[in-house]
Amino acid sequence: MKPTAILLLNCPDRQGIITDITKFITDNRGNIVYIDQYVDKDNAVLFMRLEWELEGFLIPRDKIAEYIDTIFTARYELSFNVYFSDVPPRMAIFVSKQSHCLYDLLARYKAGEWNVEIPCIVSNHEDLREVADQFGIPYYVWSVAPDHSNKAQVEKEEMELLRRENVSFVVLARYMQILSEDLIAAYPHKIINIHHSFLPAFVGAKPYHQAYERGVKIIGATSHYVTGELDAGPIIEQDVVRISHKDTPQSLILKGRDLEKIVLSRAVTKHIERKILTYHNKTVIFG
Amino acid sequence: MKPTAILLLNCPDRQGIITDITKFITDNRGNIVYIDQYVDKDNAVLFMRLEWELEGFLIPRDKIAEYIDTIFTARYELSFNVYFSDVPPRMAIFVSKQSHCLYDLLARYKAGEWNVEIPCIVSNHEDLREVADQFGIPYYVWSVAPDHSNKAQVEKEEMELLRRENVSFVVLARYMQILSEDLIAAYPHKIINIHHSFLPAFVGAKPYHQAYERGVKIIGATSHYVTGELDAGPIIEQDVVRISHKDTPQSLILKGRDLEKIVLSRAVTKHIERKILTYHNKTVIFG
Amino acid sequence: MKPTAILLLNCPDRQGIITDITKFITDNRGNIVYIDQYVDKDNAVLFMRLEWELEGFLIPRDKIAEYIDTIFTARYELSFNVYFSDVPPRMAIFVSKQSHCLYDLLARYKAGEWNVEIPCIVSNHEDLREVADQFGIPYYVWSVAPDHSNKAQVEKEEMELLRRENVSFVVLARYMQILSEDLIAAYPHKIINIHHSFLPAFVGAKPYHQAYERGVKIIGATSHYVTGELDAGPIIEQDVVRISHKDTPQSLILKGRDLEKIVLSRAVTKHIERKILTYHNKTVIFG
Amino acid sequence: MKPTAILLLNCPDRQGIITDITKFITDNRGNIVYIDQYVDKDNAVLFMRLEWELEGFLIPRDKIAEYIDTIFTARYELSFNVYFSDVPPRMAIFVSKQSHCLYDLLARYKAGEWNVEIPCIVSNHEDLREVADQFGIPYYVWSVAPDHSNKAQVEKEEMELLRRENVSFVVLARYMQILSEDLIAAYPHKIINIHHSFLPAFVGAKPYHQAYERGVKIIGATSHYVTGELDAGPIIEQDVVRISHKDTPQSLILKGRDLEKIVLSRAVTKHIERKILTYHNKTVIFG
Repeated sequence: MKPTAILLLNCPDRQGIITDITKFITDNRGNIVYIDQYVDKDNAVLFMRLEWELEGFLIPRDKIAEYIDTIFTARYELSFNVYFSDVPPRMAIFVSKQSHCLYDLLARYKAGEWNVEIPCIVSNHEDLREVADQFGIPYYVWSVAPDHSNKAQVEKEEMELLRRENVSFVVLARYMQILSEDLIAAYPHKIINIHHSFLPAFVGAKPYHQAYERGVKIIGATSHYVTGELDAGPIIEQDVVRISHKDTPQSLILKGRDLEKIVLSRAVTKHIERKILTYHNKTVIFG
Repeated sequence: MKPTAILLLNCPDRQGIITDITKFITDNRGNIVYIDQYVDKDNAVLFMRLEWELEGFLIPRDKIAEYIDTIFTARYELSFNVYFSDVPPRMAIFVSKQSHCLYDLLARYKAGEWNVEIPCIVSNHEDLREVADQFGIPYYVWSVAPDHSNKAQVEKEEMELLRRENVSFVVLARYMQILSEDLIAAYPHKIINIHHSFLPAFVGAKPYHQAYERGVKIIGATSHYVTGELDAGPIIEQDVVRISHKDTPQSLILKGRDLEKIVLSRAVTKHIERKILTYHNKTVIFG
Repeated sequence: MKPTAILLLNCPDRQGIITDITKFITDNRGNIVYIDQYVDKDNAVLFMRLEWELEGFLIPRDKIAEYIDTIFTARYELSFNVYFSDVPPRMAIFVSKQSHCLYDLLARYKAGEWNVEIPCIVSNHEDLREVADQFGIPYYVWSVAPDHSNKAQVEKEEMELLRRENVSFVVLARYMQILSEDLIAAYPHKIINIHHSFLPAFVGAKPYHQAYERGVKIIGATSHYVTGELDAGPIIEQDVVRISHKDTPQSLILKGRDLEKIVLSRAVTKHIERKILTYHNKTVIFG
Repeated sequence: MKPTAILLLNCPDRQGIITDITKFITDNRGNIVYIDQYVDKDNAVLFMRLEWELEGFLIPRDKIAEYIDTIFTARYELSFNVYFSDVPPRMAIFVSKQSHCLYDLLARYKAGEWNVEIPCIVSNHEDLREVADQFGIPYYVWSVAPDHSNKAQVEKEEMELLRRENVSFVVLARYMQILSEDLIAAYPHKIINIHHSFLPAFVGAKPYHQAYERGVKIIGATSHYVTGELDAGPIIEQDVVRISHKDTPQSLILKGRDLEKIVLSRAVTKHIERKILTYHNKTVIFG
């Protein structure tokens, strides 16, 4: 695979924009290897993902964002980001006591499925240090006091770690602690959570018990970006599994684990591939 | 297929009950062709479905319920119903303007998929009379005034029709009118509704618009028995379909129709087969 | 909805093609409302679907194909088709004795779900004439003799009907007769069949019995374009449903019917929307 | 959970058998906590799973099988096995180079999801020794020579290991070597394989490449017991995932991995729970 530049953009939908952007790439000798777009007609917004080979492209890679900004931002009211396929994102994982999502993430990482680096794992418990050690990844524990008296201090130190490690996004792999506004604001639509229900059904605590009480015939899991409102951020991926009256809360928890790890990993895959745009608290996910 | 008796029962779970019931059937020369049971351990309740051939059974069919009542009700605090496979249930269908569920029900009926009789279709609109005529089924229209001034009278006449036609259960095939407590009380857990969302997500009106607003990646449909609380009765069947950011409320409505008709028909099938027990606002559904 | 032109094309993948085509539309004042493309990297082939509003477009609609041909065909080795959203395709339905797919197609047609015309239904049996009559669509029966002595003559008359009715594509809605090479050749990748298995498993006759014998835990249905080789044409859509050891061939047939009608209707929807391209015996299906 | 005895049986379907067996348990003061049965009407065979608490049961655990044999085997032509919930099965895992299934199995084992012991991991390659070491499980490597000259010797040593470790069943977690008849015969319906296709589609090598070539819209995975015929043993579990024309053989392999590990683990779960009976090359799986 030759290194590529990836452009993710959105702007008001206007005639000519697709032509202009593709012409800009082609005129500068970029070989386009991926183009996909979507127009939200209700809001008249265009979303686009373009990927082209850097080899032979006339604009040096450290000037690409500047050029796009100069040429298009004012003209088309463009919002955009440029990424490079040979600069992998850096992912921090937050965990508590349950290991299934963590193992799933690390097994993929170890098998080389993802173009990603994992500089650190953060937890509020010691329980999973052994798993981190198995995979040779630094494990940091900060305990929040029951009265939350040290929570501000803890999050300050966590954010310092994330900055020091140049983390580009965070994965909450069944992290059982609510993040403060500050941490969320520092990583807008860059913190991926897995909620163990088919949102918006069963928001909040103990969703499998809620599902059992309601007598649903299908349970689900939802990965979403974290926002200030609990379990209400943009949904990235969902999946479900069929259950029956024979299931107990305990069997739902076991069946749900398989959903959780798959749904979380699919979301992480899309994020690593830079295929997600967010808008109006929803996601546009390119194929 | 030889005629069978079907016994659906539930009672407090107690040692010996399964043996006693099966022994009762066998001792009276009933050939058991189906036995399934389920114990809700949390509530220590046993649910059971037994089916045996009437041919050669020593107790006459009109005495079976009486015998079971005498022998078991007091001893095991039994709740039960006896049905006969050669006495098909009689199903009334309530519709409004949308035809997809109605066509699906009637096409199955016409093809002989179900052991059921359909004596009448009831509506609050004239729109689907043509469909009823196509299939030769009487179609009754009662319009409820916008101020609901005649609603009590309308439901009284509807209930008279249901009684006159000896209707055993009612199917609301996208019937866009809320039933009164009286009608619901007259058919407890015998009115099947199809709600066009994955309940308990998106209760109430316009669920596809709600799903679109929330940006979910999967939509669903739910069939349930109607109770006094809106969209909160025992769930019989649910299914889902994957959607994407490209879907509009309009495309969700179209995709949802396929779900609605399949999910409703699966619930109706189970009800006709007498395979559903309800308890604590949940269903036990035998395979 | 304003009338649009739809361009479906494929060609060897070459730098600049996307820019050139979109520039052609934009330069001639066409407002692009849909663009999607896909590159098969193994074979270096580009597939593209473009849709733009005819209003204000400088090239008259009856000249569009000619212009595209002149400008692009030689230069890019283009294969393409142009359709207009206000010229609905004309669909013939072939049936035998089973009604479930036919009812499903006609109920959608009647409800106005599809931008399509249905000038005729063709059968080798009288059984479903009643259904065609219900919906007021002409029903033609040609019986093929057991020794196939009149098969050539029958197909000749059928093809005359299709030509006379200006049929653009054919749907085999559980049509239990193998088409001859001539009829298939006259409608290349324009005859949609529904096969009642998850192809390529269980090719040929009685697939549900084959599935039962093999003890699979999931059954499927497959819609595909008909080619000279039985059940081997380009697959358009597939879906599955979970079964268990309790299922009999008869219950598989009933469960399969729901799959068959949904899978067939999804394929027909995509075909009517002109969103399918075929290549190397596979389909590219735009979203 | 109190210790239980589990009885899995099959026999010709005959009147009275269910009553007799449950009466035998109840008369001997066994508290039945699970009963499920299934009758294959085509072959007139009854399958049954019974579980009762050992506490208070009048027959000592080491005599239970003998009593059942004496009382029922001749009378009902019974085939049966008795297991005890406090005697966990011992599972050997065979692997080659791919780690995803192995990690999934070991992560569940480590998290205590399963009532199982894993005394050894066997491989034909050194690659996954590191994973076995992470979890502290002995790892044995036997390399088969390219000319298979030492294959008989290798399998002899493997079987000695299995016997020495008292292994009750074997899981082939993407083990890329065909077992000989001897090893298969030593563990009849006790070797679980995961095949990376929706069997019987795409038997044999490189099923994802086969699926890509055929252009299917859904791929699957199948877990089954190994028999003498390749990929043709009794199917335990299958699942599928939707794909599109955009998928390449490489992306199918990645998507397939998620299926493989889930489908294999579901099969292993059912086997560990002693909920599977086999008959006529099919499985009966209790819920």
